[in-house]
Amino acid sequence: MAIEESSVVAAASKAAKFWLNRGGFKTEVLSTVKVGQVHFMYQGDFNNLSAFFKAVKPQLIAAAKPITKNMEKRGGGIIDIQLTDKTQDISGYYQLHATFDTQDAMGANFINSCLEQFAQTFKSKALQFEGFTGSEKNIDIIMSILSNYVPECIVRAEVSCKVEELNDHNDILPEEFVAKFIQAVNIAEIEPYRAVTHNKGIMNGIDAVVLATGNDFRAVEAGVHAYASRKGRYSSLTHASVVNGIFKFWIEVPLALGTIGGLTGLHPLVKLSLELLNKPTAKDLMSIVAVAGLAQNFAALNSLTTTGIQQGHMKMHLMNILNQFDANAEEKATLLTHFKSNPVTHSAVVEAINSLRAKN
Amino acid sequence: MAIEESSVVAAASKAAKFWLNRGGFKTEVLSTVKVGQVHFMYQGDFNNLSAFFKAVKPQLIAAAKPITKNMEKRGGGIIDIQLTDKTQDISGYYQLHATFDTQDAMGANFINSCLEQFAQTFKSKALQFEGFTGSEKNIDIIMSILSNYVPECIVRAEVSCKVEELNDHNDILPEEFVAKFIQAVNIAEIEPYRAVTHNKGIMNGIDAVVLATGNDFRAVEAGVHAYASRKGRYSSLTHASVVNGIFKFWIEVPLALGTIGGLTGLHPLVKLSLELLNKPTAKDLMSIVAVAGLAQNFAALNSLTTTGIQQGHMKMHLMNILNQFDANAEEKATLLTHFKSNPVTHSAVVEAINSLRAKN
Repeated sequence: MAIEESSVVAAASKAAKFWLNRGGFKTEVLSTVKVGQVHFMYQGDFNNLSAFFKAVKPQLIAAAKPITKNMEKRGGGIIDIQLTDKTQDISGYYQLHATFDTQDAMGANFINSCLEQFAQTFKSKALQFEGFTGSEKNIDIIMSILSNYVPECIVRAEVSCKVEELNDHNDILPEEFVAKFIQAVNIAEIEPYRAVTHNKGIMNGIDAVVLATGNDFRAVEAGVHAYASRKGRYSSLTHASVVNGIFKFWIEVPLALGTIGGLTGLHPLVKLSLELLNKPTAKDLMSIVAVAGLAQNFAALNSLTTTGIQQGHMKMHLMNILNQFDANAEEKATLLTHFKSNPVTHSAVVEAINSLRAKN
Repeated sequence: MAIEESSVVAAASKAAKFWLNRGGFKTEVLSTVKVGQVHFMYQGDFNNLSAFFKAVKPQLIAAAKPITKNMEKRGGGIIDIQLTDKTQDISGYYQLHATFDTQDAMGANFINSCLEQFAQTFKSKALQFEGFTGSEKNIDIIMSILSNYVPECIVRAEVSCKVEELNDHNDILPEEFVAKFIQAVNIAEIEPYRAVTHNKGIMNGIDAVVLATGNDFRAVEAGVHAYASRKGRYSSLTHASVVNGIFKFWIEVPLALGTIGGLTGLHPLVKLSLELLNKPTAKDLMSIVAVAGLAQNFAALNSLTTTGIQQGHMKMHLMNILNQFDANAEEKATLLTHFKSNPVTHSAVVEAINSLRAKN
């Protein structure tokens, strides 16, 4: 996990340990379709455009062959190209909406190269199309680019156990814990101020693995948060239920990831990360990353609904500050004891170090 | 800029150079309010809760004094605490909605520590409040946590120039360029599939500076994308216009950043980054980061609406692959020439290297 926040690694480890003896994490890759679009302007009769699209579609695919042939050898390629009428939103605006299977590559370069080829072929063939009258031939390409919105590239991860197995807290019964936990998830489902932070915590886990494996975390972030807002109100990515005494907690999240191409073969630490993960396929990595997100969210809600997150967080923060001041082992031991019963703030720690050192 | 994608740095540099002689980037920090919430359940008469809140509010602020006193010395602190009725969404669900000024700190630890103190005081004082009847005293705290949704912590960045100054392209007139550019922005305003990638490109620039300065990029990402979806449809963060022959291009973006606290004093490269930026205040850094985002988006739209992004991108990708194969200067020169007129794919480059080396 590549991350600047030490508590993210601690939380993931804690959740992993907790679920290890309670059935572990289960995952399912639901779909892996990726999307790209050629955005263009056309002023004319839609029937003529539609006829042109029908005629040119095989040529679009044929012209992209030099780009797609290797991807096809690996079992991927262009899935489909559709013509989309967007003139209700902007006068004269249409799209070629293309879908792709990029196998173990994230596929950004592949998709963008295909789309730019589509645009070139589409524009030049339009000039020759006999079904167009006059200026209809002059299709104006605005841009050709993949979409990082991938609601059809989805993985699901889940944990479940009997309610009575949620017995990790000395001072709270499993039934009380689960009621509070589910309430916390419900709140994140309906309150955007909470949902944003709830999902941010999920992304702490997701990004740490995305970064370590040399994937593009901005692409993942954008796709995930847009997905969280798809129903018109920004909402939680995780959900929880109790049915017949079984607690279930799950996430469904869009993840366009690669384990070949891009940086994966170039960066030495990325290579090491992929080796540590036993050289996963892209689908394996989708599962691993989703689990990291779910584990992180479980750990966060577990702390938030019981002790609060500051207790653990400030203990780590204390160690960071002690390291900043090059505290030795003896100083650390003294100050860790002191701050068990005193609030950790940066200034309080600095004062305590200075006062300790003044004594010696 | 800390980022794995070399073309992000190239794009930012290109946009910076372009605008340097056209009036440069202008910024304005519009507001810096941060938010945190105590989420709780209360089953009883709202009037009693309201009376309790009014009575306890000064005590909440007083009890947090040990946490807030240093922040107050620096001019920040708690701005306000409000009681929010959320029972329309979940029966019995209310919030303490608190706002904060955290000055040059991002403030996550500060806000969370305040909130946990509020929750503790709120719960214990409720047990003693005489206006509550019976079980009304038992307020159930679900969790206390800052929000990464910061629609009142906003910075605006802008560039503008006469349309005729947009004369950087040999084969396209400024008027044509600007028409396409604005069309591309309009598309990102109404089409979520495009908006997600449009904003992802902005985040390429934003995150590169956020990471370099030791800030929490997940927090920034979550807040920004939720803001992009606030009107019910995920939309562009940037906008463009031409009025009276003046082209204007701008971004408004929520950014909760810190230049003290957290990692800023701990990580050696973060220290170096902040020194390179002349030790900015948090407001300075908001401006710098917003400019990085706007510059990135300008460069992306500039390429997308003219040559396409693959030309520049694949040239960089080619160099990455050549470096992977430890190509020497002579091999690089030969292959750069070769790929000026041949499509760059990973397999084509590998073939070309092998065939070149087989000859020698």
